[in-house]
Amino acid sequence: MNVEIINTGSELMLGRVLNTHQQWLCRRLADLGHVVTRQVAIADDGSEIQNAVREALSRADLVITTGGLGPTSDDITRELVAQLLGRKLVQNQDVVEHIKGFFAKRNRQPPLKTDVETFVPEGALVFLNQTGTAPGLAMHVPSSTLNPPSSSSKKWLIMLPGPPRELRPMFDDAVVPLLKREFAAENFVCRTLRSTGIGESRVQEMIEAGLEEFVKRGLGVGYCARPGAVDVRLTASGSGAESLVRYGGAVVQTILGDHIFGSDDDEIENVVVHLLKEHKKTVALAESCTGGGIANRITNVPGASAVFLGGVVSYANSAKETLLGVSPEILQQHGAVSEPVAREMALGARAEFSSDFAVAVTGIAGPDGGTPDKPVGTVFIALASADGVEVERLLNPWDRLTFKDVTATQVLERLRRRLVG
Amino acid sequence: MNVEIINTGSELMLGRVLNTHQQWLCRRLADLGHVVTRQVAIADDGSEIQNAVREALSRADLVITTGGLGPTSDDITRELVAQLLGRKLVQNQDVVEHIKGFFAKRNRQPPLKTDVETFVPEGALVFLNQTGTAPGLAMHVPSSTLNPPSSSSKKWLIMLPGPPRELRPMFDDAVVPLLKREFAAENFVCRTLRSTGIGESRVQEMIEAGLEEFVKRGLGVGYCARPGAVDVRLTASGSGAESLVRYGGAVVQTILGDHIFGSDDDEIENVVVHLLKEHKKTVALAESCTGGGIANRITNVPGASAVFLGGVVSYANSAKETLLGVSPEILQQHGAVSEPVAREMALGARAEFSSDFAVAVTGIAGPDGGTPDKPVGTVFIALASADGVEVERLLNPWDRLTFKDVTATQVLERLRRRLVG
Repeated sequence: MNVEIINTGSELMLGRVLNTHQQWLCRRLADLGHVVTRQVAIADDGSEIQNAVREALSRADLVITTGGLGPTSDDITRELVAQLLGRKLVQNQDVVEHIKGFFAKRNRQPPLKTDVETFVPEGALVFLNQTGTAPGLAMHVPSSTLNPPSSSSKKWLIMLPGPPRELRPMFDDAVVPLLKREFAAENFVCRTLRSTGIGESRVQEMIEAGLEEFVKRGLGVGYCARPGAVDVRLTASGSGAESLVRYGGAVVQTILGDHIFGSDDDEIENVVVHLLKEHKKTVALAESCTGGGIANRITNVPGASAVFLGGVVSYANSAKETLLGVSPEILQQHGAVSEPVAREMALGARAEFSSDFAVAVTGIAGPDGGTPDKPVGTVFIALASADGVEVERLLNPWDRLTFKDVTATQVLERLRRRLVG
Repeated sequence: MNVEIINTGSELMLGRVLNTHQQWLCRRLADLGHVVTRQVAIADDGSEIQNAVREALSRADLVITTGGLGPTSDDITRELVAQLLGRKLVQNQDVVEHIKGFFAKRNRQPPLKTDVETFVPEGALVFLNQTGTAPGLAMHVPSSTLNPPSSSSKKWLIMLPGPPRELRPMFDDAVVPLLKREFAAENFVCRTLRSTGIGESRVQEMIEAGLEEFVKRGLGVGYCARPGAVDVRLTASGSGAESLVRYGGAVVQTILGDHIFGSDDDEIENVVVHLLKEHKKTVALAESCTGGGIANRITNVPGASAVFLGGVVSYANSAKETLLGVSPEILQQHGAVSEPVAREMALGARAEFSSDFAVAVTGIAGPDGGTPDKPVGTVFIALASADGVEVERLLNPWDRLTFKDVTATQVLERLRRRLVG
């Protein structure tokens, strides 16, 4: 089975936004056993869109488009596709009612522009938009309407709205059931083991020999370096896929040991929240250079409130004194980015929040503020518990945003290691 | 001039990584006056890669590939393209010396695997890799070698390595000069005005008539809805492009007024930090449901420490009491998600940090915790200043992460409006 994705949007071709649909849809489809064979992005341009859809339908069994279904003048995908497939646009009463209800709930009149969203290609399945107005559309395209006619009889064209918060629930609620009904899933298994604390080439050196036998039998191995982490991806298809990936995964797990923090969609923050719940422990934070980034990641995890009591973002020195009780003398003597200040911040946070653990981080995110002794990227991480405080000094000489992200990962990793013993 | 990008990599098709090359290259090329007409991503697969390159060369004047030039077994782009274009691979002594030097500097022997990187298609221009080993390649493809032959005589195929830290400097140092030499830049101007507080279709309704005259003269207008913001994108090419975009932009600015928070790469947090500096004011935060997300965005801005004193992430009720001085009675009587608690949080933060402004936010991020009276998505935003406190109740009924992001944007927007008066 061939699957293609077409992302429409001039903003993509101008490089103004990141195409997050590609990753999200490819991932979801692979999980369903359908690996995407081609992804195309094009501008909101009549002939480009029609050419791309025509070409994709000539190759693929399933084509998914994103974008161009909204109410503004550059939302032209619906009309162009209807024209390409020789279908009239007809008003759909369910969509009319849905849009009325959408605005009624918000005590507003539907803007006139949204009227265009109520017209759909004749015969299309309509997916009402639970988080917006433009409906998604699905059309079974008979091979005979294609030019040249295709050999495959089963072709589906699915059109989804561009905003991620509309596309994602619509895919899960409406597209997944359609795919399960219409296409037999191929047996495909993919598992990603996520490691931290070792570089990409070292990871490969460590596990290569151990996986050799499985690779000969068809196991695919891929590596991906992320900020502060390295992913090892194992894939296989066919009847023995599950066991190949399972045994290969066991080998990687054995060799890399507790460098593996999770698998697939696990982020360190999810693992940490889970471990804290399991151990019935709470945590608090004192963040300086990460500026709330660690708290933000922890609170991305649903249910974090059970274990995360809160944090202080002590950006100014005065905040370190008044909210965390760091003594002015220590700040004066050692500077805000120092081992003793990290220690006092962690102790202060643990006392203020009455938490089991408290982590403090202070450092120089840059681009300014570095000194020969403490260059940009210098960071002190302190972990306080009933057993006392441990402080570590690290150097993350990256750009400001990468620095914040990598440092947050390291803080969460220290907490994870502490929790797994 | 037509420009196409081909991103190769099985990890892309499995949805394991985000394709950041697309945005980065599209943006760079647009800034040079070459808007990308199509971007394609495919797996590391022989026939797919050859088909994609053949098709792109049949349409485009310039084709840029990324990935597949490295030393491992899935790096197959170089050989496949040489085969497609009927060129032999020959060893290049500059690359041999470069790789030797690369490893000598690191006191290591070049791994045997890197040998394959020294072979390049006959006649190719070679870009030595300043941050890695695999060279980039550029080939002038005579129309006669294409099947079918193309009408355009000037076709370039440029192949760049996959890792962003190798691709980006190579593009700037080697590809940009080549493009400037070989292709006349078209005069192309793009400006994005970023608005907030009005929906996408309402934005278009408001500005459409005012822009009509400019659109007739060739101004392109595009819209892009982001979480909590709508971008209006104005583009034009040719000799009058600058003034068309400038005057069109002035019309949009006049009509949308202070709904416009910035342009191009501005994020609200950058604008807010800039305004605070301009007004010599400081700010502090009390975050509950956004969990540090606002502080994280503010501290992404270099130099934020001049105006951002810090924040309290008061996730637990006890933290609201001990760190922000919210009275237990008010918490008990009204609940943590309430107007009076938001008010006390803002006042508490302003007092604790001695800041000019303090913003507090408390709400229900979900997925659990909603009630009929206060459903998931309910949020109270309080802004405290020397003039007192204003509290607003909003409903952001999105998924947890979108809720956090949209709420953070709304908080920053309130602060911005307050600062612009």
